[in-house]
Amino acid sequence: MSAAFPAAAAAIVAAGRRMDALGWVPATAGNFSVRLDDRRLAVTVSGRHKGFLTPDDVMVVDLDGVAENPAQRSSAETLLHCGIYRRFPEAGAVLHGHSIANTVLSRAGGPSLTLAGYELLKVFPGLPTHDASVDLPVVENDQDIARMQRGLDALWDAMPEGMGAIPPGYLIRGHGSYVWAPDMPMALARMEGLEFMLRCALEERSLR
Amino acid sequence: MSAAFPAAAAAIVAAGRRMDALGWVPATAGNFSVRLDDRRLAVTVSGRHKGFLTPDDVMVVDLDGVAENPAQRSSAETLLHCGIYRRFPEAGAVLHGHSIANTVLSRAGGPSLTLAGYELLKVFPGLPTHDASVDLPVVENDQDIARMQRGLDALWDAMPEGMGAIPPGYLIRGHGSYVWAPDMPMALARMEGLEFMLRCALEERSLR
Amino acid sequence: MSAAFPAAAAAIVAAGRRMDALGWVPATAGNFSVRLDDRRLAVTVSGRHKGFLTPDDVMVVDLDGVAENPAQRSSAETLLHCGIYRRFPEAGAVLHGHSIANTVLSRAGGPSLTLAGYELLKVFPGLPTHDASVDLPVVENDQDIARMQRGLDALWDAMPEGMGAIPPGYLIRGHGSYVWAPDMPMALARMEGLEFMLRCALEERSLR
Amino acid sequence: MSAAFPAAAAAIVAAGRRMDALGWVPATAGNFSVRLDDRRLAVTVSGRHKGFLTPDDVMVVDLDGVAENPAQRSSAETLLHCGIYRRFPEAGAVLHGHSIANTVLSRAGGPSLTLAGYELLKVFPGLPTHDASVDLPVVENDQDIARMQRGLDALWDAMPEGMGAIPPGYLIRGHGSYVWAPDMPMALARMEGLEFMLRCALEERSLR
Repeated sequence: MSAAFPAAAAAIVAAGRRMDALGWVPATAGNFSVRLDDRRLAVTVSGRHKGFLTPDDVMVVDLDGVAENPAQRSSAETLLHCGIYRRFPEAGAVLHGHSIANTVLSRAGGPSLTLAGYELLKVFPGLPTHDASVDLPVVENDQDIARMQRGLDALWDAMPEGMGAIPPGYLIRGHGSYVWAPDMPMALARMEGLEFMLRCALEERSLR
Repeated sequence: MSAAFPAAAAAIVAAGRRMDALGWVPATAGNFSVRLDDRRLAVTVSGRHKGFLTPDDVMVVDLDGVAENPAQRSSAETLLHCGIYRRFPEAGAVLHGHSIANTVLSRAGGPSLTLAGYELLKVFPGLPTHDASVDLPVVENDQDIARMQRGLDALWDAMPEGMGAIPPGYLIRGHGSYVWAPDMPMALARMEGLEFMLRCALEERSLR
Repeated sequence: MSAAFPAAAAAIVAAGRRMDALGWVPATAGNFSVRLDDRRLAVTVSGRHKGFLTPDDVMVVDLDGVAENPAQRSSAETLLHCGIYRRFPEAGAVLHGHSIANTVLSRAGGPSLTLAGYELLKVFPGLPTHDASVDLPVVENDQDIARMQRGLDALWDAMPEGMGAIPPGYLIRGHGSYVWAPDMPMALARMEGLEFMLRCALEERSLR
Repeated sequence: MSAAFPAAAAAIVAAGRRMDALGWVPATAGNFSVRLDDRRLAVTVSGRHKGFLTPDDVMVVDLDGVAENPAQRSSAETLLHCGIYRRFPEAGAVLHGHSIANTVLSRAGGPSLTLAGYELLKVFPGLPTHDASVDLPVVENDQDIARMQRGLDALWDAMPEGMGAIPPGYLIRGHGSYVWAPDMPMALARMEGLEFMLRCALEERSLR
């Protein structure tokens, strides 16, 4: 799925408002993108507060993360967006946010986080039932983003193929979550569903 | 109690805004309905985000869940709404939502959840005092909705009769809550009261 | 302090919006009042959702709780408001709300709740420092409101006299909190300060 | 960095709205300032609710906290703002708020609070990576503000010099947090980043 730049920028601005209202883009955290065509994406400019974006805070890069306008600097994590669009043709929009739940749970656990039995698992493709489980990858945080993306590619290479085999999201330890979907409304729905389950999983760990 | 379609659709749209503000309709979760007359209800269309509904996201089905306009598809859980309207003549509006508290508590417990001693118990009919307790049924989640409704009917058949004997709500394990009331404002009040008590019950379980 | 009815009704409507935004008036819980003169108060009508009040949801009663317009019915807990205005000349506005923290803490404890060492203790009169403690009374819930008020009067009779000796607030077990102040903005500030400390106290009890 | 008074007042009013939406200025808590020039700052007037400020709630003091207009009284904690501007030339805006997390954690710990491994540590200057730790000072609360500031000066004197050596923030036990930055948007970003990490740290302490 692809979109024209003005529509992509509008979707990104609106996603920022929503993510901010949900508390998932503190400080200048988070970054969002929309696929424009088979070689370009619209992505947030580096360093802006994502709750107060305007279309001027959205720019164009190619699938290697190179800015169309060299005067602009895209998010430091642009290569993670590119890595998703290069590998998953069905990805039309990517969201990254920081939540209390994804930060705390990713710091407390190992290389993946299992979500099982929640009705909201149905937000993931290939899961028509709650009676299932998803192993969400948790990768180590790294300020070398290209290296982090190579690790993700290796991880995905090792997973089975086919619809739903690779979950459309992952966590970075102590950092945040990434999700993708064919378009921005669906990406937002997946983010809300994922974060809901993470919050449940976190609260389940404080029960006595 | 019954309502004309435009009023029912407006009540459903407003309920969605409120439920979203309260965090109880993540992703495309939740569904709402209003009884139109003795054989029809207005219910949400399948798959929409309930915080951003318009009247076009509301449609008409009969008490067997059959759409008046066959081009439209109502929520997968429409038969649970029908099951409530068929059995309880006093039901004029039905709300279903997903909250952290109802998900975590229903996953942690058994076939019912007892709420006792809360002032807000008075939102349930037949309870003029806080000095009471309500056993809220918790049924197993099931993607076969007709089968889930048959289970609910069997459960209700086994309960005593009379005002307040069957609580106007239940939980689905790992999934969410249903409440009903004569009209939508009262259904929203019951949902708020129920979720408040569930949140209290959840936080009480983390005290030391 | 006293106010004319239109100003009192406007203050009550605005307080409801704020209390609802803070999550402290679920369902139709909560009630608010403003003193009009030495024998009358403006108080919320029974059974309305406090987040959506209009001036028509505010009515006049005397200090015995008798409605000026007998066609109107004031909140079931009107006598608690009267009990405050009768005893404390400095009370110009009264707020009652239900929060998760005040409900859980009052259910978990004894006849009072001690708040000590918080900077926000300074919202209480007679406490110019955080280096202090307040014993907030926790009374038993009772659907006989006149009897509950007699218990409060006996409790206050047994307390020392003087500025700050009786805290301008109390909890009802499993039910909610009451605060009062010379005017509505100050009552809201005290409610926010009290609920902030209660939330802190609750979270301190889940630390390991 | 410095600003003209109208711009400073507007930034302070907007910061108040944001801090209130985030729940960090309960009652009349919190105070904010912006540096005007090398000897004056704009600061909030004492005792107002910070979520409902107007430009009239902002006044001018010098670096010793003396009001330009002697009829106005600035926040009781103005000297803490002055202490920051006097010492840190890069400080252009200062924010003080009360959060549940900063209150609970500061009450539970010792003379500093260590935050380590969070991606959001990058909101602090001199930390280009998450693979770091910050020891945030926690000073004792004191109603003698000049004395508290002398304690802070002694603390800062004992710290190493250089960019990032002294973190641009601290906690007051049982009271709240202070952060500063070159301008108000950056101060807000630091506050959001700090409070996010504090909330994570608090929730990590309730995991089992």
